[in-house]
Amino acid sequence: MAQKEGKQNQQRGSADYVKNPHLEGMKEDFLYHINLGTKTNNLPEMFGDVKFVCLGGSSNRMKAFIELIAGELGMEDPKSEYPNICEGTDRYVMYKVGPVLSVSHGMGIPSMAIVFHEIIKLLHHARCKDVTVIRIGTSGGIGVEPGTVVVSKEAVDPITFKPTFEQVILGKMVVRNTKLDSGLAEELLECSKEFSQFKTVIGNTVCTLDFYEGQARLDGAFCYYTEKDKMDYLKKVKEAGVCNMEMESTVFASMCELSGLRGAVVCVALLNRLNGDQIDSPHEVLEDYQHRPQLLVASYIKKQLQTKAKHN
Amino acid sequence: MAQKEGKQNQQRGSADYVKNPHLEGMKEDFLYHINLGTKTNNLPEMFGDVKFVCLGGSSNRMKAFIELIAGELGMEDPKSEYPNICEGTDRYVMYKVGPVLSVSHGMGIPSMAIVFHEIIKLLHHARCKDVTVIRIGTSGGIGVEPGTVVVSKEAVDPITFKPTFEQVILGKMVVRNTKLDSGLAEELLECSKEFSQFKTVIGNTVCTLDFYEGQARLDGAFCYYTEKDKMDYLKKVKEAGVCNMEMESTVFASMCELSGLRGAVVCVALLNRLNGDQIDSPHEVLEDYQHRPQLLVASYIKKQLQTKAKHN
Repeated sequence: MAQKEGKQNQQRGSADYVKNPHLEGMKEDFLYHINLGTKTNNLPEMFGDVKFVCLGGSSNRMKAFIELIAGELGMEDPKSEYPNICEGTDRYVMYKVGPVLSVSHGMGIPSMAIVFHEIIKLLHHARCKDVTVIRIGTSGGIGVEPGTVVVSKEAVDPITFKPTFEQVILGKMVVRNTKLDSGLAEELLECSKEFSQFKTVIGNTVCTLDFYEGQARLDGAFCYYTEKDKMDYLKKVKEAGVCNMEMESTVFASMCELSGLRGAVVCVALLNRLNGDQIDSPHEVLEDYQHRPQLLVASYIKKQLQTKAKHN
Repeated sequence: MAQKEGKQNQQRGSADYVKNPHLEGMKEDFLYHINLGTKTNNLPEMFGDVKFVCLGGSSNRMKAFIELIAGELGMEDPKSEYPNICEGTDRYVMYKVGPVLSVSHGMGIPSMAIVFHEIIKLLHHARCKDVTVIRIGTSGGIGVEPGTVVVSKEAVDPITFKPTFEQVILGKMVVRNTKLDSGLAEELLECSKEFSQFKTVIGNTVCTLDFYEGQARLDGAFCYYTEKDKMDYLKKVKEAGVCNMEMESTVFASMCELSGLRGAVVCVALLNRLNGDQIDSPHEVLEDYQHRPQLLVASYIKKQLQTKAKHN
């Protein structure tokens, strides 16, 4: 299977992000969790112009992001009405302004994988080209100040700290690559220089399947290790060049790699895990932090669209 | 670590569901993802009477469930207002009527684990006793008719089909037991006999980390196997006594086991995976299916409370 996947990866850069010969034979493809289908919706008309897909955990945050994007691109709705395209389901939300799609992904690898599978199929059915996908999220910082924005260099697993993602397919473990687009990460870092109000760094990101024991917290319902065990692990994490921990980056990166989509992960650190476990900063402070990756990514998208317009 | 965990498991049945010595030393415990805290809320007053916690993926469904429970227990709000107790966050929703808590868990193991850690801590802080937790969900059936309700005998992994759950803690793989309460499953099956409009069965449940490739679907964005490979795997699954596949049961069962909470998983099959991959039944049919586990669990809770009232 690894060999087969390797061959398909060479298609990276091609317009077709889907790698599934079975899709062609299907009369209809209903994207169940986003409540859109090839029979029920005209997907090329609705989504054919999409160039940026931004994914974030929280539905409220992704609504705020589309409002920010509308302002940045001068495409505000005078009534400030941005309809949720997935209104028929409560699993995810989706908003669109011009070439930008803003989609929630819930929490954790499986929730991200479900919506990303369906988004990749959506881009395929809508015949989109040259699309960039960016995860905009929150994370626990490792040795960085709260409020720091981390652009992921590599999304790494919590055991070996290598850029890999393990997935069970047909009862067998398959290991996939999670390398992210280094050019895109550098462009985002360059773009961050205009924001003097917060610091942006590039570093590795550990992706875990659990928030409490999986991220070495002492404040879960269960904890069978000592504070020293925790600190020893977090120090190892830091020594591996890791700046933050979150719960979606490896599957996101592996699916970017397989599809050929250009992808980046931009997360703010809500706390520095070397100093504690609880996220207990005041609400306004956390709101300000969560806004930072949005500001950076909105500015990046605006610049890209301006550059493209000049060349056309 | 396995040995330590084994010892703590013997506390099963005791009132304290939390197994974490570090919690005692904390001045405040803020349950971030459900937006409740020991300093900001009087948790014993708000939740001290809770005897049943029902968890389901979708927020709309868990709102519908609390309305159903209110009707069953004769505790309807004349204005039909059931406030979302977690209103300050969009991560999860929580409703309460009498001794019943209805909580959403999102999709996938990590999302379930986050809210369940915080619910177990909530029960601890509120000094709750004799609590039963039930996951009410949807699933893909394996060899059962669409609409069948499956009460899980065991929650099993997708490789060995054994009742185990693997979790990375401090960079090491820890294997946990996922046995569910067989008495509770039998009681639920007994209770199902009053519902002639749908079939209820007891069987094993495979829990996966992915909906598409992880459940051998042919309709994901990626698929590197043939229809024959898929069917060979699903047949193996069936031969292992499995009646359905979903995405939360193993972590739920392992956390029941560790905490000593009595737990059950009751999921309706939205389709028979031996006949296809897409969930494309009409909306009304799916709505009816999703209502079935709710009807069963609401009836069970009502009976339990009636029996208890008689004995008091």
